[in-house]
Amino acid sequence: MSSIDRISRKPAPPIDDVHVNAAAAAEAAENTTNHRVDTTFDKFHDRYSTRSLGLKTSPVRALFAVANRPEVVSLAGGMPNIADLPLDVVGESLKELVDTRGAVVMQYGSGQGEPEIREHICEVMAVEGLIADPDDVTVTCGSQQGLDLVTRIFCNPGDVVMAESPAYVGALNTFASYQAEVIHVDMDNNGLVPESLREHVTAARRNGKSVKFLYTVPNHSNPSGISQSAKRRREVLAAADELDLLVVEDNPYGLLNLDGDPLPTLKSMDPDNVVYLGSFSKTFAPGFRVGWVLSPSFVRDKLVLAQESATLCPPVFSQFAVSSYLAHWDWRAQVGSFIDMYRARRDTMLASLADTMPEGTTWSRPSGGFFVWLTMPGAVDSAAMLPRAVTNLVAYTPGTAFYADGRGQRNIRLSFCYPTPERIKVGVERLAGVIREELDIAKTFELADGRHHLRDFGPGPNLA
Amino acid sequence: MSSIDRISRKPAPPIDDVHVNAAAAAEAAENTTNHRVDTTFDKFHDRYSTRSLGLKTSPVRALFAVANRPEVVSLAGGMPNIADLPLDVVGESLKELVDTRGAVVMQYGSGQGEPEIREHICEVMAVEGLIADPDDVTVTCGSQQGLDLVTRIFCNPGDVVMAESPAYVGALNTFASYQAEVIHVDMDNNGLVPESLREHVTAARRNGKSVKFLYTVPNHSNPSGISQSAKRRREVLAAADELDLLVVEDNPYGLLNLDGDPLPTLKSMDPDNVVYLGSFSKTFAPGFRVGWVLSPSFVRDKLVLAQESATLCPPVFSQFAVSSYLAHWDWRAQVGSFIDMYRARRDTMLASLADTMPEGTTWSRPSGGFFVWLTMPGAVDSAAMLPRAVTNLVAYTPGTAFYADGRGQRNIRLSFCYPTPERIKVGVERLAGVIREELDIAKTFELADGRHHLRDFGPGPNLA
Repeated sequence: MSSIDRISRKPAPPIDDVHVNAAAAAEAAENTTNHRVDTTFDKFHDRYSTRSLGLKTSPVRALFAVANRPEVVSLAGGMPNIADLPLDVVGESLKELVDTRGAVVMQYGSGQGEPEIREHICEVMAVEGLIADPDDVTVTCGSQQGLDLVTRIFCNPGDVVMAESPAYVGALNTFASYQAEVIHVDMDNNGLVPESLREHVTAARRNGKSVKFLYTVPNHSNPSGISQSAKRRREVLAAADELDLLVVEDNPYGLLNLDGDPLPTLKSMDPDNVVYLGSFSKTFAPGFRVGWVLSPSFVRDKLVLAQESATLCPPVFSQFAVSSYLAHWDWRAQVGSFIDMYRARRDTMLASLADTMPEGTTWSRPSGGFFVWLTMPGAVDSAAMLPRAVTNLVAYTPGTAFYADGRGQRNIRLSFCYPTPERIKVGVERLAGVIREELDIAKTFELADGRHHLRDFGPGPNLA
Repeated sequence: MSSIDRISRKPAPPIDDVHVNAAAAAEAAENTTNHRVDTTFDKFHDRYSTRSLGLKTSPVRALFAVANRPEVVSLAGGMPNIADLPLDVVGESLKELVDTRGAVVMQYGSGQGEPEIREHICEVMAVEGLIADPDDVTVTCGSQQGLDLVTRIFCNPGDVVMAESPAYVGALNTFASYQAEVIHVDMDNNGLVPESLREHVTAARRNGKSVKFLYTVPNHSNPSGISQSAKRRREVLAAADELDLLVVEDNPYGLLNLDGDPLPTLKSMDPDNVVYLGSFSKTFAPGFRVGWVLSPSFVRDKLVLAQESATLCPPVFSQFAVSSYLAHWDWRAQVGSFIDMYRARRDTMLASLADTMPEGTTWSRPSGGFFVWLTMPGAVDSAAMLPRAVTNLVAYTPGTAFYADGRGQRNIRLSFCYPTPERIKVGVERLAGVIREELDIAKTFELADGRHHLRDFGPGPNLA
């Protein structure tokens, strides 16, 4: 290895699911504007696949790459708070698992996933009213891999995926890695707007594009916090049916309803035309990386073959570990206590926003999940503001991360899942101060030259 | 879900790493010849990606898909024998892990993999004389996923990958899933033949092909059992260097030398031009799915981004579980006892082959790993013979699985890793009987019409 190799930038954890590692803001700001890696000395620079060019380093990654600082309140990550899990029960059940079935649970397994966990997965889905056959479940290495495999089997380079506005950043990364083009569908407070779906799909097809599926998070979407109403679900499915468009439903937060009972899943409403992604990351723990895809059987056959070529089999021990937890613990009651905890955090966040945010600022009021989507009132770029926020000891995710087309500049995703209510209150207060200051600066610039100092502002979606 | 969906064939475990599930041979034989899935009723049949067409169901899958029968001796799978692992130690260490660090080890982690396991991985590689920096390690969901990510970042559809003859079936599946074309390089008893590598690469380039890398398993290759000699390693690396060709070294069996000390890895001999794949599946346990890629830092940066889009992060709990095992147990001594066990099995297999095989049959004599490669003397097709072998209560993997170009018909991969020596002896005896019978039939057909009843026999590689 050459010494030149060694001095290059170290990769960082994924932006969406880690603590914000706060840095000296000056250094971070510099990295933010100079995030491109110098590949002059990469002897393979001309040999990478075209698809690898879609694997972009996030412009805000540098802010997340530096050391953790406890004094920074992170409203940025999507980490669940798993501190309240019964660690003694989990530990004991894993020990028993190895003692009694070690040679099986640590061995290779099925490419589709173990029958035992697929049974359990069907029990979990049934809580949301989704009745399924374990044969139709494919286990994945987290639901992110479910999304990867679904995209792999459906999308050629240049194919179109329809997505929400804004859409989950991890999904956008996956689509980009398969060179799929993303077209955002408008949303309002009831979720996807069916008319916008019709218009965009029709226009794309008129342009000769092959539109492969609609990707949607109907429950408490990441990042908007918006849920599709029951009526809207029917309308979206009717539009998809009319357009002969496959629907990929991603439902990590479906059991985390903070204000009432779950609405029916799209999959339960139209089983033949929906591929469903599920996850234990938010209802149990993400570190086992157990997600799943529920799909029509022909699609499942392809997913299993894709899984075999990708990993031989999903993590076997993890699958037994999750099965064991579900069998040994009242996981429904545990989800209930998660709900109470997240509700308190969401309520604190919404109250703090109401107390502190400058006039004109708006935000979504999620009925579940982890996230609030905030829109700033003036000519303020949330990505450019981030280093200054970190200097003021608060972090968030800029809205641009959730658009494939550069929109979201005035937007911010705030997460209430991980910090305590006390920290959330402090974080929101700090953020309000930062926004206020930025608005003042923006106003000064406007006054000085009669226009915004930012060139292209975009439509600035506002879901409040 | 329609009832038509429900009656379709169920997917099976991956062929390479499971027990052979023996079936009534008649049914199996029928499935073997009719392995295509009827997709008439798949409403998405015209919407899959082009790459998904490369995801083929193996023609022998049907034989592996039916119920396990203990009376069948399987010499087919590649499952390690992990029955001798200290299950009490592993169980206790996992319990302690959850008790003391549960909220960390069950949380999301780094896309590159946890620092702790990357340190341990470097200690493991050092045993083979490969000195590396944990910064250059990317953790993967088994080394199969390492191969998937390396192919993802390097190969466009139509690009060429050079591979051994025969080559690991799982690698061929991965290359096919990225629409890469495989060209096999000749091998002799010292491994890859450099002159053949030169010829094939030059010819491919002359035809306008972009040759992306050479994929090789220098130690105890799967399926041939052949290892590259020290001299041959130097020659292969020199040829690759001369051709400006990246080398991907897959080394799952490097620590399982049954007859002596490890030879230097290709990576240690030419660090800048080799991407190295490692695995804990054979030295500890496959069920945790922890593998890794050691690569130059620019390549690592791309692998980490690819990992994030594929899974967010590799299995976190698994990484801590493996770290904990390595820290709590004398794993070097454990590998030593694995070596003693596998040596006894290999010796039994080689002795049984010598005692029982018909004249003219040849086979490799591996100095490590899991596999023996056998070549039958006459006009016998090993894939066509498989159902008859299963009827005679022995199973193997036909040689054609290990070629992208249809060769390997006279070949058989035998694995000595999983069955006991007693079972190996019985299995080889049964196989010898089946081959003898097939040879008799082939001879009769030859006598009857003066030619082989098989149309295209291929060169029939013989590595004995």
